[in-house]
This record gives sequence, C-alpha cells and structure tokens, in this order.
Amino acid sequence: MSHPAYLRLTQRAARLGALGEAAAILHWDASTMMPRGGGAARGEQLATLAGLAHDMMTAPEVADDLQAAEASGEWEAANLALMRRAHARATALPTALVEATARANSACEKIWREAKAKSDFAMVRPALEEVLRLQRETAQALSAATGLAPYDALMESYQRGVTAAEVEPVFNAYEAWLREALPRAEEIQARRGAAVPLPGPFPVEKQRELCRSLSLRLGLEADHSRLDESVHPFCGGTPTDVRITTFYSANDPAKALLGVLHETGHALYERGLPAGFARQPVGESAGMAAHESQSLIIEMQACRSDAFLSFLGPELHRLYGGDPAPYAPANLARLWRRVSRGFIRVDADELTYPAHVILRFRLERAMIEGRLAIADLPGAWAEGLRSLLGITPPDDARGCLQDIHWHDGGFGYFPSYTLGAMAAAQLMKAARAATPGLDAALAEGDLAPLVGWLRVNVHAHGASLGFQDLLRAATGKPLDPMDFQAHLAARYLDGAPA
Amino acid sequence: MSHPAYLRLTQRAARLGALGEAAAILHWDASTMMPRGGGAARGEQLATLAGLAHDMMTAPEVADDLQAAEASGEWEAANLALMRRAHARATALPTALVEATARANSACEKIWREAKAKSDFAMVRPALEEVLRLQRETAQALSAATGLAPYDALMESYQRGVTAAEVEPVFNAYEAWLREALPRAEEIQARRGAAVPLPGPFPVEKQRELCRSLSLRLGLEADHSRLDESVHPFCGGTPTDVRITTFYSANDPAKALLGVLHETGHALYERGLPAGFARQPVGESAGMAAHESQSLIIEMQACRSDAFLSFLGPELHRLYGGDPAPYAPANLARLWRRVSRGFIRVDADELTYPAHVILRFRLERAMIEGRLAIADLPGAWAEGLRSLLGITPPDDARGCLQDIHWHDGGFGYFPSYTLGAMAAAQLMKAARAATPGLDAALAEGDLAPLVGWLRVNVHAHGASLGFQDLLRAATGKPLDPMDFQAHLAARYLDGAPA
Repeated sequence: MSHPAYLRLTQRAARLGALGEAAAILHWDASTMMPRGGGAARGEQLATLAGLAHDMMTAPEVADDLQAAEASGEWEAANLALMRRAHARATALPTALVEATARANSACEKIWREAKAKSDFAMVRPALEEVLRLQRETAQALSAATGLAPYDALMESYQRGVTAAEVEPVFNAYEAWLREALPRAEEIQARRGAAVPLPGPFPVEKQRELCRSLSLRLGLEADHSRLDESVHPFCGGTPTDVRITTFYSANDPAKALLGVLHETGHALYERGLPAGFARQPVGESAGMAAHESQSLIIEMQACRSDAFLSFLGPELHRLYGGDPAPYAPANLARLWRRVSRGFIRVDADELTYPAHVILRFRLERAMIEGRLAIADLPGAWAEGLRSLLGITPPDDARGCLQDIHWHDGGFGYFPSYTLGAMAAAQLMKAARAATPGLDAALAEGDLAPLVGWLRVNVHAHGASLGFQDLLRAATGKPLDPMDFQAHLAARYLDGAPA
Repeated sequence: MSHPAYLRLTQRAARLGALGEAAAILHWDASTMMPRGGGAARGEQLATLAGLAHDMMTAPEVADDLQAAEASGEWEAANLALMRRAHARATALPTALVEATARANSACEKIWREAKAKSDFAMVRPALEEVLRLQRETAQALSAATGLAPYDALMESYQRGVTAAEVEPVFNAYEAWLREALPRAEEIQARRGAAVPLPGPFPVEKQRELCRSLSLRLGLEADHSRLDESVHPFCGGTPTDVRITTFYSANDPAKALLGVLHETGHALYERGLPAGFARQPVGESAGMAAHESQSLIIEMQACRSDAFLSFLGPELHRLYGGDPAPYAPANLARLWRRVSRGFIRVDADELTYPAHVILRFRLERAMIEGRLAIADLPGAWAEGLRSLLGITPPDDARGCLQDIHWHDGGFGYFPSYTLGAMAAAQLMKAARAATPGLDAALAEGDLAPLVGWLRVNVHAHGASLGFQDLLRAATGKPLDPMDFQAHLAARYLDGAPA
C-alpha cells in the first residue's frame, strides 16, 4: 500500500497529466484542423489550462505532501523524485519573471520573423537582448533551486541527466574527427558519382497512402495513431492516441517520406511508454535527447540503411512507376545520404549536422554564462561556422537568424539534436549485438526486431532514468561518440555496408 | 467601472468558459478524429476538465462574491443573474447524488443499447427505474434551490424561461388542431401524387463539396467553421470556430444535405452570439429550444420553402446530372415534405413530429411527478401514440425504447424540439413582415436578409433573455402556436406557396 501523501500526489499528477493531454490535443488541432479564426480563442483555452496546471502544481498542500511522502519501490521513488524536481523548478520562478519571459519571448519571436525575412539582425537585437536577460535570470533562479550550473539548469528543461561538462568533450572529440572525416567523405562521394533524380510524378494521394502504410508497418497501430498534414511536421497527441504530421510536396516524395519515418520513431516511443504510469511524471519520456534518439534510430539508422533501402526502392517503384533505375538502393543512398557543407541546420546531412549544433551549444552557453553579448553574436557565429565547416554565411538570415529557438526563449535545447543522433548510433549498435537477424529483417522492411528491442531497453523505462543512465542501462556505457563516428565511417568513409 | 466582486466573477467565468470551449473541441475530436484507442484517455481528460470546472464554480469565495457583487447596466445584471442561478443549481446537488447519477445514467445507457436491439423493455427496466429515482431526487433538490416546480427545474437544465404550465396549453392546442389537419394533409398529398426519386449517382465527394459550399452560402465563414463527418451529425466547437458534422450516404443525397442546412442554422446562431461577452454566461445561447428554432428556421422554414427549392433544384441537377424532371421544385417538395404517420420520432415529418414530442413531454412529466411508474411506461406509450396519431407501435424498440434520452438521464429535454419548431415559424413570420424581399432572396439562394434579421433579433441577445422573453422581443408576443399552424396549413393543407 502506497504512503497516503504519495497517493495524494499521484492523484494530483494524474489530473495534471490529463490537463497536459488535453493541451496536447488542442495544440495538435491548432496546427492541423482549426480554422484561422479560432486562433484567439484557442490562445485563451491553452492559457487557462496552463494557468490551472501551474496553480495545481504550486498549491501550498503540495509542498507538505512532497515533504511527507515516502515511496515504496524504485518506480515510486523515481516518480516522487521527479515530482519534487518539477515542484522545485516551478516554485523557483517568481510569477513576475514567468510573465515577463512569456511577453518578451512572444514579442521577440514576432520581430524575428520580419528580421529574418529582411536579414536584419539590428532589428531584433534589442528584443533578443531582453530575452537573454530574462533567460539568464531564469537560469540563476533554477540553478539556486536545483544546485545545477545555470546553463545546465536550462538544459534540464528539455533533457534531464546530462550536463554541459559531459557534453563538451563529446562535442570537441566530434569536431576533431570531423576535421579529417568531412574532406574524405566529400572525396569518396565525388568518386561515387552523382545521383539520378527520381522521375515522378508523385501524386500527393499516393504519397499519403505510402506514408501511412509505412508508419503502420513500422509498428504504429491504426487504432492508436493518426497521420495528418501541417506546415511544420511534428509528433503530438498522447501515448494512446499519437498524432504525427507531415507536409507533402508533389515534386519531392522524399521530404514527406523521410519525415514520416522520423516522426514515427517519436510516436513509437510515446506508444511504448509504461502504461501503468500513464499521466505520472515517471511515465513520460526521458527527455528531448532521448526522444530524438528514437526518431533518428528509425529514420537515420534503420530506414536510410542499405538493407532497408533495398526493400524500399522496389516498393517506391511499384507505387510511382517509370524508369526503375533511379529506385535502385545505391541511387537512393546517393540521393538521401548526400553530404554537403551548408549554412542551414535543418537542411544539413547526418555528418555535418552536429557541427551546426556544436556551434549553437557553444554560443548559447557563452551567452547564458555572460561571456558573449548579443551584439557580438553575428561575428561569433560566422567565425564559429568557418572554424567548424570552413564556410562563412553570406548574411544573418543564413546565419544567426535562421532558427526560431533563441528568439522564442529556447536556450539549452540545441544539444538534444546531436545527443540524440549519437545515442541513436550507440543504441543501434547495442540492438544489433543483441538481436541476430536485425539487418536481415530490415531488408524485408521489417522493423519488429529493432522496435521490440527499443520497447524493452528504452521505451519501457519511461522517465525513470535520465539520459546518461538510460544509455548505461541499454548499452552498458554512458554517451560514447565513437559509436556514432563508427556508423558515419561505415556509411560515408569506407563504402562498407551502412 | 464594474464592481470589484463582479469583475472577479467575470474573470472566473472567463476561465470556466475557456474550460468549456476546450471540452467542446475535445468532444468534437472524439466524434470526428480520435482513433478508437484514445477513448479511455479522452474520458480522463474530459472528467478532469469537468471536475475542475465544478471546483471553480463552487469554490467558497464565489458565494461571497455573488452576494456582494453589484451590476451596472442591463447586460451585467443579466450576466450576474445567470451566474447566481448556475451557482445555486451547482451547489444544490450533493456530490454523492451527482456521482450516483453519472454512474446510473452510464450503466442504464449501456444496457439500453442491448435492450433496444432486442426490443426487450424488461431488460432495461431496473436500470431505468434507478435513473428515474435519481432524476426525481435531482428535480426536488433543484426545485428547492430555484423555487421552480420539479419538472420545470429539470427543463431549465436545457431551456430557461419557459414552464410546463406554459407548454401544456400550447401542446394541447396543437393536438386538437392536428386531429383535423393530419387526415386532410394526407388526402391532399394523395391527390398531388407520388414523388419521383432522384436518379443519382451521388458521389460522396460531390455531396461534400455541395454541403460545404451551401453552408458558406448561408453565411458561415470559411475562417471560422469546419464541416466534417461523424456517425451522429451535430454542431460543436466554439463561437469563433464552429464545427458541424454530417454523414454521407451514396444512395441518398438528401440526408446529408438537409442535415447540413439544419446544423448550419445552429452554427450561425453560435457565430452570431455577442462577441463582447464571449466566455460569459450572458454571451451564450438562450438555450436548446432557442437553438432548435435557429436550426429549424434555416432548414424547415427557409430551405424547404418553394422559393429556396426553386433555387436548389437546378443546382442539384447541374451537380448530379441525369433526367432534370425529378429536380423540379414541386417534385423536391413532394420528396422532402412528405407527411407520414410513423413510429420513429427522428424520421418524422414537420407535421407529425410534435405529436412524438407531446407524447414524451406528457410521459416524462408524469414520471417526474410520480404519476407514472416505469413498469407502466410501455402501455402508456402505446396508448398515447394511438391517441395522438392513431397508430400502435409493434414493439418497444419502435416504442419507448427508441430514444436514448431517458436512458441517459435526459428528462426535460424533449419539449425543446417542438418549442423550437414553433418558435421558428413565429420568427419567420416576423422576419418576413420586417424584411421585404426575403422570399425573393430565398429564390436566389440568398439567405442574407433572413440571417441578417436573425443576427439582430435573436443571436445578438445571447442569453440575456429567456425563451419567452426572446420571442416577445423578436416577435412582440410569447410563444404562439398559431404561427406554426399557419405555416403548416400553407405548406400541407391549402396548396398555397409555402
């Protein structure tokens, strides 16, 4: 029998969880279904839910219960620890700071849209300075409440269980490796010759059916998922009702296809979370880096592998018809695993993507720690990108104005992308070692062995483990960039099966 | 400047309103979009929102504020009166009674589905007895809190501002009139000859486009509305984001078409509610009878008129092609205004529908007042229908088991259907008198003159007036069944333009 104070806390958490689920559906609806004229009312609805959740989380009796509660067993202990942490973080921030932050983020984001369109950094500078000032204040308050360093306290908003001190050497090692690897990859790529474009046409209705059937083939259940359309693809909804979205282009079938495979990875994670702890903190995902590892292990590790492409090519040709040659797996690999030094993070390939993230990690950490002023950001960006990839952005729109994150108050998120990519490689290696026939199955378009392993070794842990502990449990070691480098070397350097 | 206690109450009402809107979108989603597997979690989400709303409504400080608040102006006074009434009703019911009612309704509704399928009244009888027992207890509690008679207190859950004592003579007069009118209408109908069925085919895609374009033509804005599909058509969403649904049959284009016109009437009412009082009690609709008057004035009064059919017939023929003769307005009138004595309320025509409602009104009032036991319901039903329409149901599935209402705890709702139908005729007469060219516009498929009049004389009042007062304001008199009878006489008895 659980402790009465613990029981009261779980009942409160269940209501908080239900409010969060309601908000998730309303967010999904706003991006997929809502007519434009419903926007203002939707804002009121979501603000009301957020306000009620905050009141519920910070009610005076919660502190008493958190003090008194005793947990029996590991999962209860993890759940209680997560409740205590969330409460400490929620009560650490004065209401005035929370409100000022919401206002400043919203104002800056609005200005940023125009500044990016005009590539005019000066336009957004004052607003961004205010955003940063409030983020630094937030980081200090969270740091005081948690004992983490200020930047780590912000990172914890997105991913628990990993610090900048752990990330830094991993990223430095990758930078050093990339310095040699990138020119070699480019040379090998040039030697392999150019890809032939797919002939088309690619009717959207066919793309839609293919994407849905692939996401079901990968393991989503029709009774527990949807696939819809939105301008910016995402995975939303709730664990028993996951909703992924994509955007179809009649000229390019790869964007929606690979995007849906990516979002399906996120969705499988949500579906695999421990149902016995639904709407409890410990029943949630382990964080954004862990989440990204699940989308990338499906999209990058499994579905862009030679094995899976050998299944997918003929499927695509059956669907779209025309000349079969461009659908040969080797050509699909050339098309969808092309390395290129570019300015834009979201367009980057697997090899250079981490360079974009390393740049942002260093800059945002320096900003939060007071070592870099907003005024110096464009210069530091250009210098950093030149040092990492040997290219210089022609303007700020293709430089420090390209991402929404900072302009909307999102400091500490960027590392998640690359931590996730690295974790995906590390998990894939462990899954392969534990699961004979995993690649043979991929070649049949069958991800069941991989997804089955992920269910047990990642999904089922919920949030009971932080990022590093989750990797330790699943792979026997904390984050190790060598597995990611080995994966990239096999795929981009040796020409060996990848 | 508003009184501080009144201001606090409006702030609370705004949050309650936002919670209600969130729930409305989640309900819509459950009927249109949600994969089946999301049902259990959706139940948790909605129960949590309902619980929070109840807590917010009945918090101790609300009673103090309601006591202290002073309203300035008519709208504030109406808003405050509605808040006081809602609070009195919410606090009148002990939590144990509310919970027992929810359980009993849910249990009975489940048994009813099987009992209806098997036409086995005995099967549902004990559960329905429990539902009635709790409804009578609820009616007593609400009666004590409001001073209304017990049945009137239940009716007020759906429609404020009309009592059974006012309804009774109106329904009695209709019954007497129908006794003469129905045989005459049948005789005239037989003389006019049978309708020719529409030739088809009716591809669902074409039906969908037609329904959407008609709902926009009637006055809904694309930016503030949706049209989707669900098993049971309804109008949901929120005033700036109204969402109507329908169900398409490839064999019969009339069902979806007339259904969408009906739901568009509901949606136009929601769109026309006073935006300045959004999410306040006085900014809501005047109730279910008022709502039904708005769906029926669009569907029955306007869109089944000779004038509108003369516009619609050629439109339908252009869309579906084939022999033009069945699309002649006179044939559409024969098809869609056919009088028939039947057992099933939802299939009934305009003339006999009130007989079904009068039967239910008398029976449910007798049950609430303790004059009719559940055991005697099937017999009383058969006897009542025989007396009203001269037919006897062959079994209980086509008798007292046909409707969900009572089996789900819905006592006091039925009168709304016929009060709405009568109000629609009364409002149409007033709109015609005030708006020259209203029928000429209908013949062009233009409802703007009618909808414009409704916006000012019905929609804009929100809930500031109860049912009878709304009619007085719009038509100069309380509910008068003569206007409805005159409408029916013109359409079904005289052969004059209708």
